[in-house]
This record gives sequence, C-alpha cells and structure tokens, in this order.
Amino acid sequence: MVSTQLLEPPYYAVIFTSLLPMQADAKEYGETSSEIFGLAQGQPGFLGIDSVRDAGGQGVTISYWRTLDDVTDFRKIATHRHAQQRGREAFYERYEVRVAKVEKEYAWRRKEDGRGEYLKT
Amino acid sequence: MVSTQLLEPPYYAVIFTSLLPMQADAKEYGETSSEIFGLAQGQPGFLGIDSVRDAGGQGVTISYWRTLDDVTDFRKIATHRHAQQRGREAFYERYEVRVAKVEKEYAWRRKEDGRGEYLKT
Repeated sequence: MVSTQLLEPPYYAVIFTSLLPMQADAKEYGETSSEIFGLAQGQPGFLGIDSVRDAGGQGVTISYWRTLDDVTDFRKIATHRHAQQRGREAFYERYEVRVAKVEKEYAWRRKEDGRGEYLKT
Repeated sequence: MVSTQLLEPPYYAVIFTSLLPMQADAKEYGETSSEIFGLAQGQPGFLGIDSVRDAGGQGVTISYWRTLDDVTDFRKIATHRHAQQRGREAFYERYEVRVAKVEKEYAWRRKEDGRGEYLKT
C-alpha cells in the first residue's frame, strides 16, 4: 500500500520501522494492522500511508499528517487501544518511531509512451 | 536492511517510495542499488539507511543525513552518476521523493527475558 499522490509541504511524516519475527501470527497481525490503519484514516489531518514489509519481516510504515498536533492526537488515541498494546507484546522484536516535518517533495512517473515526467508541488 | 540505532535529532530523512515492475532485471537493479548505497555511505553527514521492498515491487528506502546541506550534496553527486539515470529509465514505474527534518525519535526493544524496553535520545 503506497500513497502515490503528492501532499503539499509542509506536513508531517511518522516513520515506523520494525522487525516482525518469522513465527508471528500472520492472521492476527493483519487484523491488528487493519485496525490501526482504519483508526488513522478516520482521524483529522490524516493524509495517507505507505506500508511495505519484505519476506524477511523487515517493515517500514510511514503515515502522513497535516500538523504535529494531528500526529499527537492520533498517538494518544492509538495508545489507548488494545491494538497497539497487542502489537508491542505479541508481534514485534523491535521498532523505531521517527516524527519528521516534510519540507520538500517531488515525484516521477513513467508515461504511456515510456517517457518520464516530473511532478512537483 | 534497516538501521536500528537512534540518530539524535535534529537530522534529515530522505523518503524514497517506488514501484518496480515485475519484469525488472533483478541482477542489474541490485547492482545499481548497491552502487547508490555505496556512494551514500561514503558521503559526509550520512547516518544510515532503511530499505525494504515487498514481493509486489513496492519499495521504501529512507536515507538519514545530519544536515540539509548533506542531502543536497549527495543529490548533486548522485544525479551525475550513471546509476541514477539508469534507475529512472530502466527500472521504475514511478517514484516519490520527500525530504523531511526529523524532530523526535524513540525505539522499543524486546529484551532476552521477553519484556520490552523503550529507548529515547
């Protein structure tokens, strides 16, 4: 799941990197992830999410928010949910969280004729 | 490849999200990626890199740098290399680049006894 649209800086990115052990319960993890994503999508200031995990269990999830207050509000709500507690205790070996202010962005697209074009906001 | 250590804000994150078509030449892509990673690691201000790609070709690579000048210097060097040109033309369907200032970070680790601990900088 990757949010391909540009989001117009300034905005905030919450970078979540993690290691999921191979023996993690994939079904329960999927349900918990979906719950957190659903929670984020309903929050004020939510702009999008990029989430990728490879076969070795390394994952990067980045959620994008309009303001730092939106980030803080989401964190307060999420930490009171069973889902996040369950995430820590049942799933991860380790994780890192970084809160960053996006200052610049651009994109590149391959067009139908095979040539590329740049997009900026 | 995930850089698990905390890096002491403020510093910069360059978030690169991309889609690699299934028919991409995996060997050549790997060589090009290694060349770019090697180039980054030799640059002033380079702090680390997180890079994950899933089976569907969605990828997130985040490189971390001490200052915005370090980011700019690396971009100037990289854009003059064959590797990046080759990346655009041969490999990707699309990509996004976001430059963000990391303001806060923390980490969580599972200890040997199974309990968790938080780390902050």
